[in-house]
Amino acid sequence: MAFVHSVRVRFGHCDPAKLVFYPRYVEMISDTVEAFFGDALGHPFEVLHPDHAVPTVQMRLHFTAPSRLGDALEIALRPTRIGRSSLDLSFACTCGGETRFTAESTLVWVGASVRPEPWPDPLRSELISRIDPS
Amino acid sequence: MAFVHSVRVRFGHCDPAKLVFYPRYVEMISDTVEAFFGDALGHPFEVLHPDHAVPTVQMRLHFTAPSRLGDALEIALRPTRIGRSSLDLSFACTCGGETRFTAESTLVWVGASVRPEPWPDPLRSELISRIDPS
Amino acid sequence: MAFVHSVRVRFGHCDPAKLVFYPRYVEMISDTVEAFFGDALGHPFEVLHPDHAVPTVQMRLHFTAPSRLGDALEIALRPTRIGRSSLDLSFACTCGGETRFTAESTLVWVGASVRPEPWPDPLRSELISRIDPS
Amino acid sequence: MAFVHSVRVRFGHCDPAKLVFYPRYVEMISDTVEAFFGDALGHPFEVLHPDHAVPTVQMRLHFTAPSRLGDALEIALRPTRIGRSSLDLSFACTCGGETRFTAESTLVWVGASVRPEPWPDPLRSELISRIDPS
Repeated sequence: MAFVHSVRVRFGHCDPAKLVFYPRYVEMISDTVEAFFGDALGHPFEVLHPDHAVPTVQMRLHFTAPSRLGDALEIALRPTRIGRSSLDLSFACTCGGETRFTAESTLVWVGASVRPEPWPDPLRSELISRIDPS
Repeated sequence: MAFVHSVRVRFGHCDPAKLVFYPRYVEMISDTVEAFFGDALGHPFEVLHPDHAVPTVQMRLHFTAPSRLGDALEIALRPTRIGRSSLDLSFACTCGGETRFTAESTLVWVGASVRPEPWPDPLRSELISRIDPS
Repeated sequence: MAFVHSVRVRFGHCDPAKLVFYPRYVEMISDTVEAFFGDALGHPFEVLHPDHAVPTVQMRLHFTAPSRLGDALEIALRPTRIGRSSLDLSFACTCGGETRFTAESTLVWVGASVRPEPWPDPLRSELISRIDPS
Repeated sequence: MAFVHSVRVRFGHCDPAKLVFYPRYVEMISDTVEAFFGDALGHPFEVLHPDHAVPTVQMRLHFTAPSRLGDALEIALRPTRIGRSSLDLSFACTCGGETRFTAESTLVWVGASVRPEPWPDPLRSELISRIDPS
């Protein structure tokens, strides 16, 4: 079950080659995770912090086709695996059916001391219900 | 007496028109203020915070000529007026003698509660010695 | 007649003081202008470029109250004056009725050579109809 | 043989958790590649473009320890493998000997049509001389 975050490519996303500058994609991924926690899971970051956070500990990115000014990007987020404190996410960014990038990340549920803690139960159940192992 | 901060224009600063995207200039101004407090005044932000901060309360910007990838920008900062809690700064960004933008800002010395406080004395004296009212 | 652009304050907009980092506001202003040209005027930047552009030549900013993670900002843009090639805009950013910043800018209609050109007629008429001199 | 790019952590790099916001690390990596091509290889991007470019096609990132305001980061870039048109790079970001993140990327030499082209000979030789397969 994918959560989809939409982003219009703006002037400030693009570089002199007239393509999206790839670090801006990583910001879009961060925004997608933030929207997923707030809008899909009901745990907005402004409520989580400062007692909890979900830092990203690793990420892989594949850039498959360029994006241009004005493109309407859809970034689909799918949880793929949950651990005691970790969560694997997969991302696919498309525009009009064409894949622009894919990504996988691992994030960790941490407490105020930035130490991993087990996912709290209602959130764990909600995440498990959304896992798509494909 | 100007404090000069140098910035090389990178790919990520530029937009599809191949010119520096003007919000990036505002980041460069913020970096210049931060370098001024750390390198010139000996009050780096990592030491100031969280007990004190110098938020910018107003700014004027004039963009006079475009900048391009690879340009070596020099941003000159001059304090122009000090108040009880405020400080006016003027900025001139040049490249090879050509002015790219000028700016004026006002920032305020605040305590942890984000309320203005009088400039502490050694810092006030240091700032006064650098004021260039021209 | 104001054009309103909505922005949710994300993690990446905020600084270690837990407030929106002010250069991010300037990016939001740029996005608001871009949305205005595309959504209100029917001249999206991806169609304007590279034959025309509307670079910002000056801007004034007043930061009146801080914004925090999760805030739902509304940025209202009002055209206030049109010249042969120039356009003055005023901006007011609010959250739940509280003003966070105001700004005024001047932008210029330029051709491919980045020289000012007179506003083309249907666009000039459309802009005039939206001017709010207050 | 590593190429080292130094970055001081600024206010704008950090998030409300007072740590570097990880998409800013990806911008730092992009800047490191740009500095490597300009300063080490003598092929600054402003000369390469628009006839050639080196888009990043994939990247892996491991975030191992957080960075904070004022940290003096050193990002070491090492070429690890060269193909007909591709180049693998490895990155290690440290501060005072502590690793903050590591990354690996693959970039491709492309022509104006954004199609891969074989590395030109003097550049290929220069890159081969710098390869560190460890």
